[in-house]
Amino acid sequence: MAVHTQDNLMKSLKPLFHPRTIAIVGASREEASIGYRLFESLQESHFAGSIFPVNPHTTEIAGFRTFPSLQDIPSPVDLAVIAVPAGLVLSIIDECAAKKVPAAILITAGFAETGGTGSSLEEQLRERIRCSGIRLIGPNCFGLMNLEPAVRMNATYTPIVPPVGHVAIASESGGLGLAVVTAAQRLNLGISSFVSVGNHVDITVNDLLEYWEQDQHTQVILLYLETIVDPPRFREIAERVGRRKPIIALKAGRTETGQSAAGSHTAALATNDKAVDALFSQCGMIRATTLDEFLGLAKALSSQPLPDGQRVGILTNSGGPGVLCADSCAAEGLLVSEFSQRTQSALASFLPPMAALRNPVDVIGFATEEQHARAVETMLTSDELDALIIVHVSVRPKDNGLVASGIVRGISAARQTGHKQPVYLCWMAEGDLDRSFIVDGEVIPTYRHPEIPARVIRQTVTYEAWRKRPAGLIPPYTDVDLVTAKEICAKTLTDREPGWLTNQETHALLAAMKIPFVSGGIATNEKDAVKLAQEIGYPVAVKLASHHLVHKTEMGAVQLNLLDDQAVRDAFNGIRTTLEQAGKFEAMEGVLVQPMLSGGVEVMVGMTRDPLFGSVLAFGLGGIHVEILGDVQFRIAPLTDRDAAAMIRGIKGYRLLTGYRGQPPADLKALKETLLRVSRLVEEIPEISELDLNPIFALPPGQGCRIVDARIRAVDDKI
Amino acid sequence: MAVHTQDNLMKSLKPLFHPRTIAIVGASREEASIGYRLFESLQESHFAGSIFPVNPHTTEIAGFRTFPSLQDIPSPVDLAVIAVPAGLVLSIIDECAAKKVPAAILITAGFAETGGTGSSLEEQLRERIRCSGIRLIGPNCFGLMNLEPAVRMNATYTPIVPPVGHVAIASESGGLGLAVVTAAQRLNLGISSFVSVGNHVDITVNDLLEYWEQDQHTQVILLYLETIVDPPRFREIAERVGRRKPIIALKAGRTETGQSAAGSHTAALATNDKAVDALFSQCGMIRATTLDEFLGLAKALSSQPLPDGQRVGILTNSGGPGVLCADSCAAEGLLVSEFSQRTQSALASFLPPMAALRNPVDVIGFATEEQHARAVETMLTSDELDALIIVHVSVRPKDNGLVASGIVRGISAARQTGHKQPVYLCWMAEGDLDRSFIVDGEVIPTYRHPEIPARVIRQTVTYEAWRKRPAGLIPPYTDVDLVTAKEICAKTLTDREPGWLTNQETHALLAAMKIPFVSGGIATNEKDAVKLAQEIGYPVAVKLASHHLVHKTEMGAVQLNLLDDQAVRDAFNGIRTTLEQAGKFEAMEGVLVQPMLSGGVEVMVGMTRDPLFGSVLAFGLGGIHVEILGDVQFRIAPLTDRDAAAMIRGIKGYRLLTGYRGQPPADLKALKETLLRVSRLVEEIPEISELDLNPIFALPPGQGCRIVDARIRAVDDKI
Repeated sequence: MAVHTQDNLMKSLKPLFHPRTIAIVGASREEASIGYRLFESLQESHFAGSIFPVNPHTTEIAGFRTFPSLQDIPSPVDLAVIAVPAGLVLSIIDECAAKKVPAAILITAGFAETGGTGSSLEEQLRERIRCSGIRLIGPNCFGLMNLEPAVRMNATYTPIVPPVGHVAIASESGGLGLAVVTAAQRLNLGISSFVSVGNHVDITVNDLLEYWEQDQHTQVILLYLETIVDPPRFREIAERVGRRKPIIALKAGRTETGQSAAGSHTAALATNDKAVDALFSQCGMIRATTLDEFLGLAKALSSQPLPDGQRVGILTNSGGPGVLCADSCAAEGLLVSEFSQRTQSALASFLPPMAALRNPVDVIGFATEEQHARAVETMLTSDELDALIIVHVSVRPKDNGLVASGIVRGISAARQTGHKQPVYLCWMAEGDLDRSFIVDGEVIPTYRHPEIPARVIRQTVTYEAWRKRPAGLIPPYTDVDLVTAKEICAKTLTDREPGWLTNQETHALLAAMKIPFVSGGIATNEKDAVKLAQEIGYPVAVKLASHHLVHKTEMGAVQLNLLDDQAVRDAFNGIRTTLEQAGKFEAMEGVLVQPMLSGGVEVMVGMTRDPLFGSVLAFGLGGIHVEILGDVQFRIAPLTDRDAAAMIRGIKGYRLLTGYRGQPPADLKALKETLLRVSRLVEEIPEISELDLNPIFALPPGQGCRIVDARIRAVDDKI
Repeated sequence: MAVHTQDNLMKSLKPLFHPRTIAIVGASREEASIGYRLFESLQESHFAGSIFPVNPHTTEIAGFRTFPSLQDIPSPVDLAVIAVPAGLVLSIIDECAAKKVPAAILITAGFAETGGTGSSLEEQLRERIRCSGIRLIGPNCFGLMNLEPAVRMNATYTPIVPPVGHVAIASESGGLGLAVVTAAQRLNLGISSFVSVGNHVDITVNDLLEYWEQDQHTQVILLYLETIVDPPRFREIAERVGRRKPIIALKAGRTETGQSAAGSHTAALATNDKAVDALFSQCGMIRATTLDEFLGLAKALSSQPLPDGQRVGILTNSGGPGVLCADSCAAEGLLVSEFSQRTQSALASFLPPMAALRNPVDVIGFATEEQHARAVETMLTSDELDALIIVHVSVRPKDNGLVASGIVRGISAARQTGHKQPVYLCWMAEGDLDRSFIVDGEVIPTYRHPEIPARVIRQTVTYEAWRKRPAGLIPPYTDVDLVTAKEICAKTLTDREPGWLTNQETHALLAAMKIPFVSGGIATNEKDAVKLAQEIGYPVAVKLASHHLVHKTEMGAVQLNLLDDQAVRDAFNGIRTTLEQAGKFEAMEGVLVQPMLSGGVEVMVGMTRDPLFGSVLAFGLGGIHVEILGDVQFRIAPLTDRDAAAMIRGIKGYRLLTGYRGQPPADLKALKETLLRVSRLVEEIPEISELDLNPIFALPPGQGCRIVDARIRAVDDKI
């Protein structure tokens, strides 16, 4: 794949999004065929340029002259839309190259998603594309739409065209793309462009993100993803684009079952969903977990401003639905605070005596158009809320029109005095529930149930907070001794089989990175163990040092709280005997003699190397917290200072680190530094495939933290 | 309120659900008024009996003769529907009594929900109802519908009447009731009867549950609740009814914000949501958390059988949506297992070569009617699934009709060979998405997104598993000494202010209930402490004994691992000095001297007395697990053996109790027994207002468990 600068990229994608001439290769007279439907879609979308159907077996389709081949088209072709059998694709690509067609959309399926010969066909396709420089969407996709008024191109095989707007959509599944396009039409969700990326042999979601970053018609980006192509580049682009335009992602395969289903229908690699979550949160993306939420977010973000904070006002004409809405908001961590006396009095002055004024404001079932209008205006202009949800239940069907017009009047009045908080409607009535309200050209999105607007506000508040924060920094740590660190790993791999580093090597490696190990050391005989213990001062702990054996506690090879020399001798000999009896004496590198630490909180830092995402770092309280309760935070390396701080704050057990029940708090600064130095280590030395610092004692503020046990694994092939 | 047997109840509610004559008191000529709308609704529903409008100020309404008063109606009146101003209600109730009207629906608002004079008016109303024996729905409600073909009564003020069916609905919010009725019409959800219970001065949800238990037209019960009236009776009835008919509940106020909103719009008591969850799970209720789920469950349960297990088959015409559905199923803990080779071969024999066969089965976008029919039939008859979800994306709008008919044919064929697994549709197309499919009279419910059917299957599988299990038992424990236990509490309350029991009293109380305290005891001087320690054997723990002071660890009053007499002496004196210095010496009852336990898992059992639900028992791992991580299970006393077992199994940290990392498992039988004995204790002695056994050491199987610290609080007024 050629490297493109962003300017080059915009230029190279122009023929895809703004072609003047399109050839449909494989256009057909048969109505059920994709070749016919592509032609029909383009026609019906009133494409602004010229369309050339290509088909060697006919002379006309629906009154249009066809051409036997690309070469026979008398003018240059900007874009070829190809729907021929898989076996003909390579020769058509060659024809495109010969005709100097700069861009193509390859609808045809039967490539890597089918495995076997399909995969090798895809490899050949990739090579042709690379050599010819043609920019390609697909294969195995359903096309591209650009609804910009100057273009009006529906180069897909669905006749359904959503309204024009500012939402760009990329979908890694054709079917899901269809479902979203269909829903967008129904929900009146305005689209700028839509791309079904298929097997993304050339153009990926990453390219499209960069394109939409510049595209002035796009304000919100929707991604349906089944994998992440080139995660480091994705992270860089998504973070940059996200600061200007919100990116909403629905990622399939959040469970293993889903991943296995995804793997079987595309050529996508299985992804670690924890890593996906980490990546998305690191680059400020809004992750929808369900299709309903995905569309709900798109509706909200495409039409309403982002809330400045989490204070939600609820206006309803009925108690119960108001309560459900308040429940949903509170469950999302939003605030439904009581209005000030001033606002309540203002509301009381025109609402019926039985109205509830605190929040939710219940205007009661028979409130008039005027009462609705004034309540909406009073709430929005109160400066006591960051977002407004209006929950309406149809009390008398024929009143709904009046209520709607009252709501529209109220919003309009507030907008005219500069009150721009987002407004969401929950319209529980008969008839067309998906229709949005329009206030002076502004679309007020409508939802069927009060849960989705609450979720939408939560997500947008989080996004806006991310967007307003400056980007994190990756500290340079000039004090580390990378030469030594790299040598240790290199030597390990030269000297013996890839695998776990010895205790000596581990200690030296961490020392080179200035990651502080607990004091003490390794003793290989009884006498040295006692000597070390005396230097440390009693009480001490004596533990088996072995890079082979893992479950040391279970085998009785960890002895704590030893009070004198004799206890240390007994511990050393006990551990040796245990290993001898188990026939594992050769695995004993000696014993670790360490001081007994107290007054600290035990935590862990881990790293595993994901084949797709690279180093995934983990942080948690250690022990059962990580393994049984799953209270762990993950992030992708390299970590910024913000990432590290967010990992620490993100665990449920965080309160334990801030001083719980009279215990001193932990040195959070030192913990953060440990995470950042580990991130640096694994970035610098890709041979490290796994790392487990567990436990780490986080001492009180100013005292730092100490690694008590560490395991590091190195492998030959830098995965 | 009179006590009604169930037969009496059915008889007394008959005039409400099956009246032959209805008087509308407050019927009005004014079209916007409730009095007019009630009249109109009844008329338009083609009520099978006679309607008598009552209005002293007119002689006819819409061509109907009106009567100046109830007394003027020439025939007996079975049911009075009352919509007069609040100030006239009591005299109308007197008129009903005089006319011997057996039942009434009181629409009028302005009672306890408004506080102040409204509350006292409600008290007077309650008294009149009690004296007259009239059965009353309301006040502050919007009426009752009985859609049974023989009755056809819409005694509400909404003209919207859903289709006839087998779902009964009770709503504690009029507005939510309206929203549900409106949605039922749109979703084609068949209703048997609907009751807006308002302030339930007489008839409560409990009465309605008993009524619907017997009502042959009702198969599924939907409750929208804002409080629970008489929780013990609710529990007994709901558990009994739930074994015959599923009860789906949407409970408002699951957050404090929601509760405060609920409290302000009805006269409902705030409820502890943990207790609500506990109660619902104990009586097998299906709890929906959102309105969307509530309606989704109603659609599924009213038309489809319950799944026998959790194996889900997914049929789709598009990869992405299939993956999302598989994700949703897996996230709900359902199985989406690969089909057998036999089934895959059968599918392969008629599906296109690119179809996916494992599960989800992807017939691909252009599959024909015939292919859909055969795929559905093959999957349902495979005996490899307990439920089928069909996810359809509109690929070519005009093909959807054929696909729909293929699906219907496939289900029909499977049903004819006795395959009755539930089928749910997710129909992602344009047009009317809420319409259900009908297969030989059977309704196949349709959803917009694949998440809801997955949730529905999870909930119904859980319900069916509960229903199939025999009810739990409350063990009698004839070995307890209740007389002593009661005496201890009584004496405490006579001797001094209500509050925490002393350590001596606590030990004695637990001993009387055969709840095993750790060995050791209380010493009030240095010498006795050493003597106790010697009896126990070293090492021991020495802890402050005080029922006043709570945070003993924080104040250094817990000393562990003491190895000899001197250490015990030092500990005793240290604790005394600490208390003296803090000026709290008088709070020292002595010290607890206990053996150091090892090899056990620390857990906790607690109880708080909820003003509404009574004793709420808690179980967790103790320490930060309960307080920071919130890993606790709650149940309402009395506990059955099944409840106790479910509490233990229900915590996230359960794996720690089954033997983690070479540690022995805990004595689960003894833990269960401790929970059951505590349940018995708090049931027998309602003066106990709070109890905290924390920590409890759960020793290995056969060795029981030991309470290490316990606090029990007694109060005078049995709350």
